[in-house]
Amino acid sequence: MSAAHSTSLRFPRLLLTGAAGGLGRELRRRLKAYCDVLRLSDIADLGAAGPGEEVMPVALENKAAVDALLKDVSAVVHLGGISTEHSFEEILPANITGTFNVYEGARRHGVKRIVFASSNHVTGFYRQDEVVGTDVPMRPDGYYGLSKAFGENLAQFYWDRYGIETVSMRIGSSFPEPRDRRMLGTWMSYDDLERLVVSSLTAPVVGHSVIYGISDNATAWYDNSKARHIGYRPQDSSERFRAAVEARQPVIDTKDAGLIHHGGGFVKQGPFDKT
Amino acid sequence: MSAAHSTSLRFPRLLLTGAAGGLGRELRRRLKAYCDVLRLSDIADLGAAGPGEEVMPVALENKAAVDALLKDVSAVVHLGGISTEHSFEEILPANITGTFNVYEGARRHGVKRIVFASSNHVTGFYRQDEVVGTDVPMRPDGYYGLSKAFGENLAQFYWDRYGIETVSMRIGSSFPEPRDRRMLGTWMSYDDLERLVVSSLTAPVVGHSVIYGISDNATAWYDNSKARHIGYRPQDSSERFRAAVEARQPVIDTKDAGLIHHGGGFVKQGPFDKT
Amino acid sequence: MSAAHSTSLRFPRLLLTGAAGGLGRELRRRLKAYCDVLRLSDIADLGAAGPGEEVMPVALENKAAVDALLKDVSAVVHLGGISTEHSFEEILPANITGTFNVYEGARRHGVKRIVFASSNHVTGFYRQDEVVGTDVPMRPDGYYGLSKAFGENLAQFYWDRYGIETVSMRIGSSFPEPRDRRMLGTWMSYDDLERLVVSSLTAPVVGHSVIYGISDNATAWYDNSKARHIGYRPQDSSERFRAAVEARQPVIDTKDAGLIHHGGGFVKQGPFDKT
Amino acid sequence: MSAAHSTSLRFPRLLLTGAAGGLGRELRRRLKAYCDVLRLSDIADLGAAGPGEEVMPVALENKAAVDALLKDVSAVVHLGGISTEHSFEEILPANITGTFNVYEGARRHGVKRIVFASSNHVTGFYRQDEVVGTDVPMRPDGYYGLSKAFGENLAQFYWDRYGIETVSMRIGSSFPEPRDRRMLGTWMSYDDLERLVVSSLTAPVVGHSVIYGISDNATAWYDNSKARHIGYRPQDSSERFRAAVEARQPVIDTKDAGLIHHGGGFVKQGPFDKT
Amino acid sequence: MSAAHSTSLRFPRLLLTGAAGGLGRELRRRLKAYCDVLRLSDIADLGAAGPGEEVMPVALENKAAVDALLKDVSAVVHLGGISTEHSFEEILPANITGTFNVYEGARRHGVKRIVFASSNHVTGFYRQDEVVGTDVPMRPDGYYGLSKAFGENLAQFYWDRYGIETVSMRIGSSFPEPRDRRMLGTWMSYDDLERLVVSSLTAPVVGHSVIYGISDNATAWYDNSKARHIGYRPQDSSERFRAAVEARQPVIDTKDAGLIHHGGGFVKQGPFDKT
Amino acid sequence: MSAAHSTSLRFPRLLLTGAAGGLGRELRRRLKAYCDVLRLSDIADLGAAGPGEEVMPVALENKAAVDALLKDVSAVVHLGGISTEHSFEEILPANITGTFNVYEGARRHGVKRIVFASSNHVTGFYRQDEVVGTDVPMRPDGYYGLSKAFGENLAQFYWDRYGIETVSMRIGSSFPEPRDRRMLGTWMSYDDLERLVVSSLTAPVVGHSVIYGISDNATAWYDNSKARHIGYRPQDSSERFRAAVEARQPVIDTKDAGLIHHGGGFVKQGPFDKT
Repeated sequence: MSAAHSTSLRFPRLLLTGAAGGLGRELRRRLKAYCDVLRLSDIADLGAAGPGEEVMPVALENKAAVDALLKDVSAVVHLGGISTEHSFEEILPANITGTFNVYEGARRHGVKRIVFASSNHVTGFYRQDEVVGTDVPMRPDGYYGLSKAFGENLAQFYWDRYGIETVSMRIGSSFPEPRDRRMLGTWMSYDDLERLVVSSLTAPVVGHSVIYGISDNATAWYDNSKARHIGYRPQDSSERFRAAVEARQPVIDTKDAGLIHHGGGFVKQGPFDKT
Repeated sequence: MSAAHSTSLRFPRLLLTGAAGGLGRELRRRLKAYCDVLRLSDIADLGAAGPGEEVMPVALENKAAVDALLKDVSAVVHLGGISTEHSFEEILPANITGTFNVYEGARRHGVKRIVFASSNHVTGFYRQDEVVGTDVPMRPDGYYGLSKAFGENLAQFYWDRYGIETVSMRIGSSFPEPRDRRMLGTWMSYDDLERLVVSSLTAPVVGHSVIYGISDNATAWYDNSKARHIGYRPQDSSERFRAAVEARQPVIDTKDAGLIHHGGGFVKQGPFDKT
Repeated sequence: MSAAHSTSLRFPRLLLTGAAGGLGRELRRRLKAYCDVLRLSDIADLGAAGPGEEVMPVALENKAAVDALLKDVSAVVHLGGISTEHSFEEILPANITGTFNVYEGARRHGVKRIVFASSNHVTGFYRQDEVVGTDVPMRPDGYYGLSKAFGENLAQFYWDRYGIETVSMRIGSSFPEPRDRRMLGTWMSYDDLERLVVSSLTAPVVGHSVIYGISDNATAWYDNSKARHIGYRPQDSSERFRAAVEARQPVIDTKDAGLIHHGGGFVKQGPFDKT
Repeated sequence: MSAAHSTSLRFPRLLLTGAAGGLGRELRRRLKAYCDVLRLSDIADLGAAGPGEEVMPVALENKAAVDALLKDVSAVVHLGGISTEHSFEEILPANITGTFNVYEGARRHGVKRIVFASSNHVTGFYRQDEVVGTDVPMRPDGYYGLSKAFGENLAQFYWDRYGIETVSMRIGSSFPEPRDRRMLGTWMSYDDLERLVVSSLTAPVVGHSVIYGISDNATAWYDNSKARHIGYRPQDSSERFRAAVEARQPVIDTKDAGLIHHGGGFVKQGPFDKT
Repeated sequence: MSAAHSTSLRFPRLLLTGAAGGLGRELRRRLKAYCDVLRLSDIADLGAAGPGEEVMPVALENKAAVDALLKDVSAVVHLGGISTEHSFEEILPANITGTFNVYEGARRHGVKRIVFASSNHVTGFYRQDEVVGTDVPMRPDGYYGLSKAFGENLAQFYWDRYGIETVSMRIGSSFPEPRDRRMLGTWMSYDDLERLVVSSLTAPVVGHSVIYGISDNATAWYDNSKARHIGYRPQDSSERFRAAVEARQPVIDTKDAGLIHHGGGFVKQGPFDKT
Repeated sequence: MSAAHSTSLRFPRLLLTGAAGGLGRELRRRLKAYCDVLRLSDIADLGAAGPGEEVMPVALENKAAVDALLKDVSAVVHLGGISTEHSFEEILPANITGTFNVYEGARRHGVKRIVFASSNHVTGFYRQDEVVGTDVPMRPDGYYGLSKAFGENLAQFYWDRYGIETVSMRIGSSFPEPRDRRMLGTWMSYDDLERLVVSSLTAPVVGHSVIYGISDNATAWYDNSKARHIGYRPQDSSERFRAAVEARQPVIDTKDAGLIHHGGGFVKQGPFDKT
């Protein structure tokens, strides 16, 4: 595989959290091209360390362990935590406490750049006929989205007080291909994911910047015009999947909240409260 | 002719009003690819019905006839009415009453999506050095533009109260080629017209959306960024006509209201009042 | 009654249309202070002309009669037409054709300033927790609102092409007192109505300006900050009626569209189509 | 004490959390005028229940206890939790988990309106020469501010998914008098606090609305124009304290981050991490 | 005369430039209440120094003399230069070079706050039916306005690079009373001028802030909402002069550029080029 | 060399000022394709006039000489003056007085279109993580930037009062290739410079339009969406230089003002005051 991004910058040590997840496994093999050592972490099994890899399993809610994780790191790609909707009680330690621990570790060890896997679910309650920029009020569509909103606010705070820079990527739907008509708008190819992550790592000045992570799809309800300083130029598009996707899902019920919002079915999940 | 748009969606019955007009004749042959039956209507002669066609001549101000027109229809492309500047008295029945009749018919027969041929003349009194989005205050440049403004407001109302969705296409200048320097900005090719109409018919969620109908022209004074959820990606450009057009019209008199506004000569027509 | 507005300007002849209606009767006695002759018109009975009055009954859809009405007039306060929700067929002649006739008459007779009684129903489909300015997209809540939206666009057009100035007053609820909790937001006292009308007549430069017509209510969902050049400073407030109104209507059902939108019950009226 | 707000609405049972805190004690005696029963809760001692009072001590992180708290409640004024800067580990259970528990209780028991004591520290990292509205991106100035930002996002979510309405009051500095020059801008008198809380409880339609809680101070860096539907009209001003406050603090060092931001000294607190 | 502003702050030495002009003479007697020593400068005769006064005549284009003027100064009220329209060649040394000299002197001598007499003529080419905020693009109406625009940009630059704070007061028409109907909008009483200047001197944090200098006039085309951190609350209004002014100027010719723009007659002055 | 722009328009006589500078030499050979006579001016040596050239050396502060320069000219490309940071005293005559002289000459000789070489340094004090449009408040980063800000305001004034049109090109970094990482954002190729200048000369209606002059770089902090009426479509990109530039400058110190602002090192130059 040749690198999707043309940078010549190379980091001594990158930390990738959530490296055992779907996007983590993709980025594990892709980020090697941009660093000397790739430190991998997850609570799930990561297998053996390959060449140029370090494997450090941690639970993100373990503050001491996360602190160790951040030591000697040049920059972080933080995918770790729960990546779909769960109960508040499950989301809280992994995503809220865990992300706090990552930023505290970064502060203590002098790490200056974090690429944070935020989510389209931070703004999931906008309708699909509303095109939104990166500075609209948050409208999370569940506990997962709330935890990502918390992470973005945390990133803003660590920038404002401590000068730690973050790019919060509001990732759409990064899969091999779009699964339904909503994903014709939210899809991001793995190559574009790599482009976005590497742009975010290498852009000279980002402060705390928010950007929607989608490919160059014809259909979109996101406006990244305030994030062009990051230098992300997607090269793929969901358009080649349109006919197949539409054939599978010809009808949209515009009364169905799960079909008409940015966040799709997330807006209807729960309640997770079983009492 | 191969279809300009990659959708696989197919409508049982589409209604095309104004099918005998300039754009109507273009769309008559192009829309067949996207439906089982194409119902055609106009007050002018439509010739015989071809394969997969139904021909239903009506005067749009005839409420009962229009009501029949909407029966059993999946979606509507409403081009009907007077399409250039005329007196208020001529515009009123065809464009204002007529469009009301179409929406009432849609409401009564449960039709849920209308693609409405609005016009750049809804905002024709902006200057050509003002780039406008789809949510600026309307500035119609004549009775025709006023009738299209009425139609857009009607569409918004039928969405807000009845849940009938509309894409209001503010069509620029859809001709085989741009005729003057203004049209270098407002031109839309017929292939792009087809792309826009089909995108508008097939976009999953549109509520009431407004979009300017132009090709990917280098010169433009429209900003469609709030309408990217529709999925319209123009593929043509007026640029290849630039040299010829400029040669024919080398001079622009910036004191001439008819040359410096979005709406061109429309801003100066009338008065139609002969008393 | 002493005049509510401190202007010293006096018009040779003012035309007041709709002079037999609720607001018309109020303004009939109030506007005399600001003109030599007050020409009164309505389709309903106006009684005999008092001192300084001229009575000219007309149906607004009668173009010739309206043309005569505008002769020798200094400025117009145009309240005429149907002022509540009715069927489209009833609204059309009085409000759409009628207002066109008034502007055509003004154009032909060189009248340069019109104060147009528009309505909060032009934007009636905004929710009561949305504060809107005077330049948001129109969202009419019925045929009445659509006709007022048409009137505003017409006013913009006669300004852009012919230099006839208009203040479009989006009147809230001008009654002796607010009748329900929505009117705590939309209420305008008659004294404030007089202030608004006279400000609109006498402001030096208005082009086409839009302003919401409400008193200085504590509760409001309108923002007139773009209209402060008109010089309207309301002096009354609905606050003194709060306790009584709340006692009569203690509960708001936030599922009831007719209780939560700017336009109140208008948003639910109709359909007027009886077939 | 006579009531500061003119409403005639009266709630069967109001819940006041954080009733033992500074603002809680003020509101405890003031809210009785607006309800039959005032249910009081805090983790600190609340003393004995007075007439019309119920006392229910709970720790907000105790989900079951909070659930019981919400039973049979008409509306909630949620002040509970830690109200100044502390470590993340202290803030988390009281403010983040605790507020979640309150909203879950409200959802389960059908409570439809919550007045949430948010804070100016949600936007504390704006400079004092930046005037901000209620829809600017959040810039929390510490863990306390982050927890209030979380609460606002939670409120938005419970409105979007469950239709529970919230007014998030971004309270400035509600003390008997302003203590320093920053508080000349952020001060809110207790009478105005009462006005704001009662307006928030009684406004007919609020969805999720954000409003800054300050008096009618001459100096201010907040713009509440998007929240005027709530009907809050402050009657007090910090101006009468100006001379005394300026005499005590004549000099502002514009290099001192703690003196020039909205959030004042909060922006510099911490780190709370002792390792 | 009692002070119009309630501050208790007192400056060791204030510099007032342009102290011999119309506003300078007013402020000369008013600013004494706020400082130990008032240093006065002008190119015109200032008379003898009164108690607590220092008189230092300079030509503002004399860099060395201006440098001496700034020595030992706590803050500056910079009114100096030509205050009405003149030729570019006259405006240049006094207003452009002169203001540069003042800022260079401030930088060299560590002066940290300047109150700059800018002008409504910085935005004089907006129409009187356009309400503008403090961040709209500049539209100067002549060489005088251009020089004030230069001064504002200079102030922004000295803030951005050197941390010298400025309030740029875009003064409307500060005279004993409004002279024409435009001044009903632009008038500022001398008491309000004092309030604005003292607010600008004493506001804790201003960076570079722009504010329109007008009284609380009913008619206005300025929006100071972004400048409320300065704490300026005008107490006067042009309304009591309305009847007299309107009687003197009953007619506005809306074709006359000098009557319909913010800048009034300034927009039509010149050309000053005599060749 | 073939022309980079497809226009067929040809000017009888174009004036190019600053023709001996870096961009001037590039445009000297490129503009010949678009005019019959190219009048060249500079204070530096221009060599002999080639075919179709006129050479007229002038110092821009010489009003009479500049007046002669504008005689019989169809349009102007005004690059003249000092093009990097210098002391105020050096910048003043060449850039401020000089540009005034050019506009006065244009006014006197009836020249109706000027393309003005403004600069990114007009907004140089924005940070590189702030994407700015063409209507944000100016934030010049030095005397050079101040002079260009003055030129833009002058252009606006000559349009508002005299109807002389200008495109103010805020040129980024037009060199053979980008020299550092900031220039990956600001770079404009010479071919794109030609495209921009010719678009600006030939766009039918520009009033006073501002546009940022950069190529189609992946990294950018400018938003030209309000200037698309000019018809500028860049064809080059800095991306092919990325690897080499990053290799030369791998590290950005985000504490270094000269590395993190739009204006780069300009923000730190000076003081030029030697006393």
